Amino acid sequence: MSWYIDNGPESDVIISSRIRLARNLVEYPFPHRMDTGQAAKAADEIVTAFLGDDPERHRAFLTIDLDTLGDIDRLALVEKHLVSEDLARPGKNHRVIISRDESLSIMIHEEDHIRIQAMHAGLDLNGCYALASDASRLFEEKLGVAYNETYGFLTSCPTNTGTGMRASAMAHLPGLVMTGKIRTIVDSLSKMSFAVRGYYGEGSKSQGNIFQISNQLTLGLSEEDLITDLKRILGQVIEQERKARQSLVQTRRLFVEDKIMRSFGLLQQARLVSAEEALGLISDLRLGLSLGLVQGFADADINRLVASLGPASIQKSHGQLMNPEERDAARAKAIRSLFGK
Amino acid sequence: MSWYIDNGPESDVIISSRIRLARNLVEYPFPHRMDTGQAAKAADEIVTAFLGDDPERHRAFLTIDLDTLGDIDRLALVEKHLVSEDLARPGKNHRVIISRDESLSIMIHEEDHIRIQAMHAGLDLNGCYALASDASRLFEEKLGVAYNETYGFLTSCPTNTGTGMRASAMAHLPGLVMTGKIRTIVDSLSKMSFAVRGYYGEGSKSQGNIFQISNQLTLGLSEEDLITDLKRILGQVIEQERKARQSLVQTRRLFVEDKIMRSFGLLQQARLVSAEEALGLISDLRLGLSLGLVQGFADADINRLVASLGPASIQKSHGQLMNPEERDAARAKAIRSLFGK
Repeated sequence: MSWYIDNGPESDVIISSRIRLARNLVEYPFPHRMDTGQAAKAADEIVTAFLGDDPERHRAFLTIDLDTLGDIDRLALVEKHLVSEDLARPGKNHRVIISRDESLSIMIHEEDHIRIQAMHAGLDLNGCYALASDASRLFEEKLGVAYNETYGFLTSCPTNTGTGMRASAMAHLPGLVMTGKIRTIVDSLSKMSFAVRGYYGEGSKSQGNIFQISNQLTLGLSEEDLITDLKRILGQVIEQERKARQSLVQTRRLFVEDKIMRSFGLLQQARLVSAEEALGLISDLRLGLSLGLVQGFADADINRLVASLGPASIQKSHGQLMNPEERDAARAKAIRSLFGK
Repeated sequence: MSWYIDNGPESDVIISSRIRLARNLVEYPFPHRMDTGQAAKAADEIVTAFLGDDPERHRAFLTIDLDTLGDIDRLALVEKHLVSEDLARPGKNHRVIISRDESLSIMIHEEDHIRIQAMHAGLDLNGCYALASDASRLFEEKLGVAYNETYGFLTSCPTNTGTGMRASAMAHLPGLVMTGKIRTIVDSLSKMSFAVRGYYGEGSKSQGNIFQISNQLTLGLSEEDLITDLKRILGQVIEQERKARQSLVQTRRLFVEDKIMRSFGLLQQARLVSAEEALGLISDLRLGLSLGLVQGFADADINRLVASLGPASIQKSHGQLMNPEERDAARAKAIRSLFGK
């Protein structure tokens, strides 16, 4: 199931888990050095290798040529985390294969020829790895994948060489933010070679108290080791976050309740809401849900809502270009529809 | 009926009307020069003159000796505008006679021996004057009231000498505030000798976009002239305010709707609300009601709510002293109870 439809394990803190595997073809230069003809040929080979001629497989996956999409459609894929910002930029034969349930997406000609991305709701790195490595095995069987006995999988950027893997999780950490402990946690994660980033990955700032936590190292460790390491760290982050929430409830109960219920009231009634404000208000609502202060919807309802609130997603669902005020109005309406007002 | 229970005329703009008449007894020095014995004797005479020995009249009115009340009870009377802040301060024989329906209150030994105050919901200065002057006539018949053929009624402060009357209205002017026109209106009212003050009268600042508008002059004009003058001015203010609201709706509809509905959402859900914030949020709600954006309650419901939200009223209704956080929590609860959450 898609990360934003399912309720996953530890979903009070971990919104989604993701495994990304970078793979490249031996016979072609890395994407930034390919000419258009090579790019088209390589892309065709990758799609054919993955889908074969099984009609069921063709039904289960959607292949999209990003160059043929309008801006809104491309950005809507970014907002759902199905493609990266880089892949959405104009390029040579940028394509993506997406499973109908949106748990698997295969980006073609991003930084590497193939970037397999598996995403599940909650904490489920093993499930994501199983899904992504199945896809990788299929490519390894059918295509010449660049692999070196000493270094492992070869990648366009040396930091990915080895497993070619990045494991990450989106963690919702309002307790650590509100108690002021987030800085210490982020610093100590960095010292242990874990990267902490904002909601849209590298270079983005945190919105709605959501942090992407990932492994930094890829060389010299096995996939299993990396996943085990990240799970161990995430376990500690989850524990700290839950403690922070409990301490907030014990020492500042009314303040926390008031903050949460005010955000709930605004979500129920506001007529103009920016994407950034929405994430902040929804963060409070998630916290309220985990503390049992608000009821009537699940984490998955909130994830589905969040995935639909980006500027492009809003315009896509209305089938038209909209100015910022129109988007804010449509966003407010979409939000209200979840809360039955 | 009490100003905060009734729906009065023009109640979309005028919250309440008030007539106050100042009267003094010939046989006693002004209150600030009386000794305790004189104050007690004069107060007794005033109460006896007003209530006589008609049992029905004794049932219809409540006589309160403010010196015997605790702080909370005294301040709760101020918050309902039944006594002035001055009368609530410790003094010699400060008393008040209040009609059960709270439309009439007679303050004893404020700045003057007798201050008759009549208050109605909406714009009803004539109704207030009829009520207040009936009370005055009764005192004039039974007591020696200080009156001079040249100057009129004599008062402790010369600015009140003449009719001894002050006519005023509480006007809700969010449209003029939001369109930035309020400054011009206040300035031109001042030039025409009308005073514009905050919600708690002289020296208080405006809260919740509520302004007290009153006549400044009392000398050389008849009561009827003063009331006619104030009504004419209020008519213009009402017209300007309605125009401002319409212009807001026409030019900034979404912005106005959003502001109103956000305040409604906060009133429905907040767990801690200060008295000042409450008045601001409720101002938006009144505006929403007059524009038909929110439904399900009347201006009078809002007035009744407002009259119960002051720090003293909150504590009085809970029968206990409360710290600011407890009051904010109780206030938020009282507010939510009106909106069915």
